[in-house]
Amino acid sequence: MGPKIGIVGGGQLGRMLGIAAKQLGFTVVVLDPNPDSPAGQVVDRQILGHYTDPDAIRRLAAEVDFLTFEIEQTDAGMLAEIAVRIPVNPSPGTLRIIQDKLAQKRFLETAGLPVAESRVIESRADLLSASQAFGLPILLKARFDAYDGRGNAVIRSFDDVDSALARLSGRQLYCERFVRFEKELAVIAARSADGAIAIYDVVETIQRRHICQMVLAPADIDARAAANARQLAEHVMTHLEGAGVFGIEMFLTTSGEVVINEIAPRVHNSGHYTIEACDTSQFEQQIRAITGLPLGSTNQIVPAVMVNLLGDRSGAADVRGLERALAIPNVAIHIYGKAETRPERKMGHLTATGETLAIARERAERAHDRISI
Amino acid sequence: MGPKIGIVGGGQLGRMLGIAAKQLGFTVVVLDPNPDSPAGQVVDRQILGHYTDPDAIRRLAAEVDFLTFEIEQTDAGMLAEIAVRIPVNPSPGTLRIIQDKLAQKRFLETAGLPVAESRVIESRADLLSASQAFGLPILLKARFDAYDGRGNAVIRSFDDVDSALARLSGRQLYCERFVRFEKELAVIAARSADGAIAIYDVVETIQRRHICQMVLAPADIDARAAANARQLAEHVMTHLEGAGVFGIEMFLTTSGEVVINEIAPRVHNSGHYTIEACDTSQFEQQIRAITGLPLGSTNQIVPAVMVNLLGDRSGAADVRGLERALAIPNVAIHIYGKAETRPERKMGHLTATGETLAIARERAERAHDRISI
Repeated sequence: MGPKIGIVGGGQLGRMLGIAAKQLGFTVVVLDPNPDSPAGQVVDRQILGHYTDPDAIRRLAAEVDFLTFEIEQTDAGMLAEIAVRIPVNPSPGTLRIIQDKLAQKRFLETAGLPVAESRVIESRADLLSASQAFGLPILLKARFDAYDGRGNAVIRSFDDVDSALARLSGRQLYCERFVRFEKELAVIAARSADGAIAIYDVVETIQRRHICQMVLAPADIDARAAANARQLAEHVMTHLEGAGVFGIEMFLTTSGEVVINEIAPRVHNSGHYTIEACDTSQFEQQIRAITGLPLGSTNQIVPAVMVNLLGDRSGAADVRGLERALAIPNVAIHIYGKAETRPERKMGHLTATGETLAIARERAERAHDRISI
Repeated sequence: MGPKIGIVGGGQLGRMLGIAAKQLGFTVVVLDPNPDSPAGQVVDRQILGHYTDPDAIRRLAAEVDFLTFEIEQTDAGMLAEIAVRIPVNPSPGTLRIIQDKLAQKRFLETAGLPVAESRVIESRADLLSASQAFGLPILLKARFDAYDGRGNAVIRSFDDVDSALARLSGRQLYCERFVRFEKELAVIAARSADGAIAIYDVVETIQRRHICQMVLAPADIDARAAANARQLAEHVMTHLEGAGVFGIEMFLTTSGEVVINEIAPRVHNSGHYTIEACDTSQFEQQIRAITGLPLGSTNQIVPAVMVNLLGDRSGAADVRGLERALAIPNVAIHIYGKAETRPERKMGHLTATGETLAIARERAERAHDRISI
């Protein structure tokens, strides 16, 4: 049996990482509190335990040769302890910077990268003064544990200040200048253990209620903006420590500039299209990166559109319309094997390819209309 | 959790079928005598038992919605019993015809398909008379349970007759006229539950000691021969019963004709290249076919060369050179997770893609040279 990889977290990202690792012959163990987790179903073994539980993480690490994670909400301190003994990637130091969204902003600013201006918020007075300095609207955000829009509030008028503070009370906060954007972009970037960097093409992400709905790959933007976005991603990678795949979210502003929004220290929803459309999927890339293997080609072979399959009700998951969706050519459907569905929960995704982005998008939307979970 | 698929056999074909089925959201259970089998590692559950054991097959069938197999050496009679209750594909009737290589030949002849002339052999006298009628060399073959050259003997002179009969003694035999071929070809063909047929491009297979070493996709043959081979495959599929994927092996004779050699009622080594090079892999195609889903496009996107990674020694499997092999661009490596290696055992495969078949082949051979198991 091959060397062992441990993955902290057993969701859909762990599932797709697990499949890539098994293909390359690794033994894979995941840590997740949910028995029969999406990743647990496709790998050798699952340790039942929470991905924030230091003891559970230690138990996982004790039996593997390489450790990685599919979720930022884990114990960076414990990972740092483990990294003394076995390779843990992305590096716990990088994870710690990224976990604190304000530290992440400062890190990017220090590296000379364009980000929205931000301020720490410790009181109502701080927020009022920032609102006056930046102008409205302004974004109030939790520094830690915010994802899919949970932990964010938009303040459009001074009347919103108290409700925003109430909604995020008890959390460490910061605020950001609102960026007026034309499009949201993302770049998947990877670094190998020996420091080689590989950058995928720029994609456009379409969000609704802060949840990614659709990814257009490549983004339909001018060549200058695309080159700029890729350069920024490369710049980020030269400053972050550790090997692995990162999802770098950006804005293309109404004035044509590219600004970095935030970084995910892991494979990313915006990179699922790479399974069907690129020489090397982001998942195989991550497995290569964390195990000291050379990176694969990031070349995109064919235009692709990815659509998330979000739950549309609560209850036992039940995939409907698979047959009708698969009747559309060049549609690959990924169902994550979650037992329970609920509104907006990521239950699967589909990727359509086509000779043009328009053809791929038409196929993806038609397939999406036919399927429900 | 999705509907359940049972797979009889847990080798590498079951492993790649399992990954395809998991991606589509199915629950997958395999039957294999080897704990921690290649397929068992990547699916929900493994039942420990032999794939020829009718009781074990019955236990597997009792907990699934669809049943298929990755190996011909199973109990067609038990599958036929199960098929009364749940869909079993390819059909047990088709499996039974294919299991008996002589019955398979007769079936193909009756369907009007070109095959080498053959005769049943029940005695030394039968073999001598066939040798005189067909001329030497002649092939003596076991009707049942022959694969990878086990169960075949070539008789080049009358001196070989007794040793060939001794080697295959105790088995039911037949003989075949020797086909002088230019190339060995294969076509992967699929039929859905509602009778739709999909044919992949013709590939060339390069064998050594009756074991597939390399597959060139597409085959470098003239358009007439390629069209002929695809037509023959379609013709085979209109005559075989049941849904599923079939590997159809053919000869391109020295006189430019295409002759059918034999049919495998399952995904096939010659179709592994479809994972990287085609719109739909043969494995997803099989899962679609046996679960009543529509077939996917068989279109090949890019030239590809597949090389089997065969064991080169006996002992615990240990993949060497993965790092150096993966440094070559556009090389996808599949390691099957078998604990023990032995000479000629199929331990994995790799597929290289490239703008031309020559580029893909050069990459595949270079990668193959760097890796050993």
